[in-house]
Amino acid sequence: MEIIRPTLVLDKKKCLSNIEFMANKAKANKLRFRPHFKTHVSAEVGSWFRDYGVTAITVSSVQMAEYFAENGWDDITIAFPINPLEMENINALAAKIKLNLVVETHEILKILNNKLTSPVEFYVKIDTGHGRTGIEADREGQIESLLEYALIYKENIKFRGFLSHSGHTYKTKARHTIYNIHFDALMKLNQLKKKFSPVFPDLEISIGDTPACSISDDFRGVDEIRPGNFVFYDLMQQQLSACEYDQIAIRMVCPVVSKNQSRNEIVIHGGSVHFSKDYIMNIDGKKLYGRIVRRDGNKRILLNEMNYLHDLSQEHGILKVSPQEFNKFKIGDLVEILPVHACLTAHAMGWYFTDEGEIIDTMPRY
Amino acid sequence: MEIIRPTLVLDKKKCLSNIEFMANKAKANKLRFRPHFKTHVSAEVGSWFRDYGVTAITVSSVQMAEYFAENGWDDITIAFPINPLEMENINALAAKIKLNLVVETHEILKILNNKLTSPVEFYVKIDTGHGRTGIEADREGQIESLLEYALIYKENIKFRGFLSHSGHTYKTKARHTIYNIHFDALMKLNQLKKKFSPVFPDLEISIGDTPACSISDDFRGVDEIRPGNFVFYDLMQQQLSACEYDQIAIRMVCPVVSKNQSRNEIVIHGGSVHFSKDYIMNIDGKKLYGRIVRRDGNKRILLNEMNYLHDLSQEHGILKVSPQEFNKFKIGDLVEILPVHACLTAHAMGWYFTDEGEIIDTMPRY
Repeated sequence: MEIIRPTLVLDKKKCLSNIEFMANKAKANKLRFRPHFKTHVSAEVGSWFRDYGVTAITVSSVQMAEYFAENGWDDITIAFPINPLEMENINALAAKIKLNLVVETHEILKILNNKLTSPVEFYVKIDTGHGRTGIEADREGQIESLLEYALIYKENIKFRGFLSHSGHTYKTKARHTIYNIHFDALMKLNQLKKKFSPVFPDLEISIGDTPACSISDDFRGVDEIRPGNFVFYDLMQQQLSACEYDQIAIRMVCPVVSKNQSRNEIVIHGGSVHFSKDYIMNIDGKKLYGRIVRRDGNKRILLNEMNYLHDLSQEHGILKVSPQEFNKFKIGDLVEILPVHACLTAHAMGWYFTDEGEIIDTMPRY
Repeated sequence: MEIIRPTLVLDKKKCLSNIEFMANKAKANKLRFRPHFKTHVSAEVGSWFRDYGVTAITVSSVQMAEYFAENGWDDITIAFPINPLEMENINALAAKIKLNLVVETHEILKILNNKLTSPVEFYVKIDTGHGRTGIEADREGQIESLLEYALIYKENIKFRGFLSHSGHTYKTKARHTIYNIHFDALMKLNQLKKKFSPVFPDLEISIGDTPACSISDDFRGVDEIRPGNFVFYDLMQQQLSACEYDQIAIRMVCPVVSKNQSRNEIVIHGGSVHFSKDYIMNIDGKKLYGRIVRRDGNKRILLNEMNYLHDLSQEHGILKVSPQEFNKFKIGDLVEILPVHACLTAHAMGWYFTDEGEIIDTMPRY
């Protein structure tokens, strides 16, 4: 396939190297590596993890669990609150694979106890400060009373441990803040482990976020890590110092279709239906939707922050470029853009094109 | 199909009524109605327009033109700058259907002249103030010299008229500003019509945006309108006063999966992969990603602005609700959300579920 339209190109070598990096880190720290597959959502990309010893995965919906179960994965954690409307689907999955769920209320535990027809294990979701879901780590009484039910409801449900996602690392501006949040989460989770281990000696700690898993080497008390975004990385992760530009494994290749000299703007085919609309702030205080890589023969040059994807409409992308760069762009050129948020860009596109020329599909929409 | 997961429900009756409204307005003003199909991007939804006399459509990519041409549409305007890399596809389309293109430079006109193998007509894109693409309306010299080539390159290309999209109506805060922008665009386009009619007596004026087409009754000098979003409308259009809440024809139906009383937050399954990430500002100065409709038996109640979809991560949506409303939400309930930007939400989902229980597909991703 020749690239003539907005195309999400996947650098398989970089992707494999990102997987290897995280797999090695898990191994060195004696952690189970249960990568989150919500970023790529692709059976093919998922299969690449097998070569690095991965046998257990994380997903963020029952639908995604069904997709990966159909594609040969038999140990899946659904790291998302249980939706009682999906109990039939959960039962079908639990009959087929080793299924791990996440619980934060007695209400849901009771539903599981009443409706499960095959065994599952569950984690209690702990909120270490992100403030999205889970029981706040210091509410030990609340956790204790939930776990009392875990001792009663024993037929099909077994308590496995505590699971957290320190998503507030995404809101930080400096590397040391990620360490702070991570260390704080470890302290909270270890405190819970210590308190509840006498009753549940096998309980595990599972943590999640890509920034901390990428930069930290301190995993005391942790049994399992569930990073996801690292498989591709992106500008948001780079800005958080979780990766280098060179580790970003996807790029959107877009045709230049128009130029406006008076505004120093280059118009590309590549809009919000391709990139989605997450942004970071550029050094000029404006929204940045992507960074530009210009090809010069075989060289690939990352342009500085004065040149960036500065606006998106449905199909149009507007590059702001410096006057020096302006003339180097020609209508009909292909320009490469590093995306801000890999997960959303991958979802918006729904397919990848590898540097080796292979088209890779993702999960069907329904 | 029973709804158990985030589902984009399409109210076909409202959708037909929106189509009828715009078709009638076009008829009353003696305008060709060439709706933009980029909002729904669905052969099935597109077919509904036939009943209102629509035979000509607008799209925003060559790929979309190919899709609708395969589905029986034979008069298509691609309202997007020409990408020279797609000349083969353009030729294949031009051989098959009546194809209209948009041009703003001599460079592109020359490429068309050299490479076209079947006839097309073209519009010159005029920038009436939006500042995205097109020649600024007052640059009459630039337009004139472009049209001189139109008289030379006569084999396969014919100048059809001026086309504009006053997308800056989307940045307004008040209804009268939409009128101002629309009136200003009409003056600019009529000035061009007057100037170039002696040489091109059949030249047409084609205008685009949904806000102006929805609220204005002044279409002096205009030959064709190309609104798109009106087929569904959304909160952005409502905020612009281009529609009423009751005209919004799509809603995302999402399961409630978690609650947090101390934060007055309800967690739904429904995130940025479902809604995409466009937002408007709520009256509290925060980002709003959707408004909540609560079902109470057969009644549907639009909650006030103190209750709204206030944050999105990949699969999670966080509703901020008032303490009074909080207890009315139960885990396992289905809640309805009016989306901010119908085009992006429709694209993110990629399929619709009608109130009549029909699943409707959209254009394949590649």
